[in-house]
Amino acid sequence: MADKLIYLDHAATTAVDPRVVEAMLPYFSTYYGNPSSLYRLARDSAKGLDDARRTISGIMGVMPKNITFTSCGTESDNLAVRGVAWLAREQGKGNHIITTAIEHHAIGHTVEQLEKHFGFRATYLPVDEHGQVQPDDVARAITPETVLISIMYANNEVGTIQPIAEIGKIARAKGIPFHTDAVQAGGTLNIRPDDIHVDMLSLSAHKFYGPKGVGLLYIRDGIQFLPTQTGGGQENRRRAGTENVAYIVGLARALKLAYDRAESNNRRIAALRDRLIQGVLARVPETRLTGHPTDRLPNSASFVFKYVEGESILLNLDQAGIAASSGSACTTGSDAPSHVLSAMGACPEEMHGTLRLTLGNENTEEDIDYVLDILPRTVEKLRAMSPLYHASQ
Amino acid sequence: MADKLIYLDHAATTAVDPRVVEAMLPYFSTYYGNPSSLYRLARDSAKGLDDARRTISGIMGVMPKNITFTSCGTESDNLAVRGVAWLAREQGKGNHIITTAIEHHAIGHTVEQLEKHFGFRATYLPVDEHGQVQPDDVARAITPETVLISIMYANNEVGTIQPIAEIGKIARAKGIPFHTDAVQAGGTLNIRPDDIHVDMLSLSAHKFYGPKGVGLLYIRDGIQFLPTQTGGGQENRRRAGTENVAYIVGLARALKLAYDRAESNNRRIAALRDRLIQGVLARVPETRLTGHPTDRLPNSASFVFKYVEGESILLNLDQAGIAASSGSACTTGSDAPSHVLSAMGACPEEMHGTLRLTLGNENTEEDIDYVLDILPRTVEKLRAMSPLYHASQ
Repeated sequence: MADKLIYLDHAATTAVDPRVVEAMLPYFSTYYGNPSSLYRLARDSAKGLDDARRTISGIMGVMPKNITFTSCGTESDNLAVRGVAWLAREQGKGNHIITTAIEHHAIGHTVEQLEKHFGFRATYLPVDEHGQVQPDDVARAITPETVLISIMYANNEVGTIQPIAEIGKIARAKGIPFHTDAVQAGGTLNIRPDDIHVDMLSLSAHKFYGPKGVGLLYIRDGIQFLPTQTGGGQENRRRAGTENVAYIVGLARALKLAYDRAESNNRRIAALRDRLIQGVLARVPETRLTGHPTDRLPNSASFVFKYVEGESILLNLDQAGIAASSGSACTTGSDAPSHVLSAMGACPEEMHGTLRLTLGNENTEEDIDYVLDILPRTVEKLRAMSPLYHASQ
Repeated sequence: MADKLIYLDHAATTAVDPRVVEAMLPYFSTYYGNPSSLYRLARDSAKGLDDARRTISGIMGVMPKNITFTSCGTESDNLAVRGVAWLAREQGKGNHIITTAIEHHAIGHTVEQLEKHFGFRATYLPVDEHGQVQPDDVARAITPETVLISIMYANNEVGTIQPIAEIGKIARAKGIPFHTDAVQAGGTLNIRPDDIHVDMLSLSAHKFYGPKGVGLLYIRDGIQFLPTQTGGGQENRRRAGTENVAYIVGLARALKLAYDRAESNNRRIAALRDRLIQGVLARVPETRLTGHPTDRLPNSASFVFKYVEGESILLNLDQAGIAASSGSACTTGSDAPSHVLSAMGACPEEMHGTLRLTLGNENTEEDIDYVLDILPRTVEKLRAMSPLYHASQ
């Protein structure tokens, strides 16, 4: 039992696909040239970089020049928000940013820093009980001072997919740059900017079997911003720093692998996910699915269990060889209740018994059945030790 | 001949040491957990991260908490400069930054952005003909408004080492945070902050046989700054974004390998470097060594050849299997003359015939002899085609 591992935390990160590792390896010690240099060795690595950019732009249906590589999804989000906001204000366009109450902290904390330290003003749009933003709310929040709208594509904690295309049309009609943090959506949902009407889009490789430490920002022609990391002229002067050629090659390979098989993969994984959701709701009393019942990421199941602590569930699951999360990996270990569940209006007694199970390519029916055996017993055991539970019965 | 490769551009980047690749590999597909998560798989990668931080802090003689991992040297430089400047101004400490005219663009362009877009004022200290800053000039430039001094440890184009420890004492006496961009010095020079009296120090792994795409910033206790990349609570809230565990492990391994052998390696490489410098100066007329004759990086040789274009030299060397640079890799391809040589007072006719040869672990005496055979003939051939040369004779 000790060596069993059923990994159900693919929203936190994924194992790098061996084919991605294979694609990256030559760029460590063979094609190691600095792509900015002039000799053959450098041209080899510059070619790896160019090919990767072309592969990705093909998948996204955009031009290669519209892809800026970064060191992660968080950097992409920071570049989009800070870069556009800073320049727009300097150009006298205003200082108002629209975002939501359920963004990943890469957006939320960045907008907060802009408010607290850089004189910006922000609107954090509410969501309904399923975690969805209403496009009408976006339209109503726009003022003559609004310089940026940033709304996530799919939520990392509860998997809810936002009506991005609708919001994008509203932003376009008003001429306001629209960014979406697609970090959690990358690899499964449609990331073609023209289809979903976005001007900027952030991705991170490690959410779709690429390495941790590389991401990209799609930037539509005409979107102006101040670079947030300055120095050499790399990435067409949009992001300075010697290019991480190996990881960029890996990002392209991972994205290609993901979108070559996205439709069938999504179908297979969503079926497993539905089996998991139905099984948990049937077998564990006083439990609720969080997030939208249908507009949710195909791999995402998230629950609240009354009268138990999410962390206790996790430790018990870990003992049984199941890797899961209580919410966002980035905030694990902090005592603060989830800002996402708060925004969705979860009642206080639900806030601590959260569990997120996010499936991936290697999961099987047997994995799900194992979880459906272990999890109900775990919750039952923990409730048996809970004074709150006994008081409620 | 076509497959011969004598790599003499180690200042641009280095091949990843196979032992570094070996150290990183398990973190791609085996220990792939997100270190912020709670289960066993995540603890394995968190341990990799912790061990790396401890290894590095041991080498630098500092506490692990003083090491913040970043995505590259450029990011480290940006974090140090932007982060400290922004907060200091907000705290009413002033808006004046002291740097030099010969910094890498990761510092130079960042300070320029702060001047142009964020209301800061900067002093760019001059250098002497060898590219050295005078500590007295630093002392004289300090005003009551000065909030940061950032001076590079060793120059990337000409290899000149700055009197960092002396400058550090001056900064310390005035209570002004002192940052050094040690990207080019890392792996060879003393990077123990207490020895060289610095408060912040930037390193990048790919300059010492680690991967491109990971760096660190040492930050002394008490130095306050605003994070420049916000989001999750990683790196003790100093740098958000899922940690690139594999590369961080690689950075630690590379730094350890470098400092385990730095003394003997530096001696061996400096001897080769001296053989190269003496040979070039003896065999190529109207040629000058740029940078300091003795206070220079052990692996760095840089020249100006009158009447020829650096780029033409490079293309001819590339044909002969020699990888070299005309200066900084980050600005290769741009037509602008080197800001470093300008600051050193190079005369206009020298500005275009630059060549930088930077040695590394795998170089041998035979490599040097080969260059000493090829390079003089190359310059002679190019000069034979140069109208400027003929006019001068």
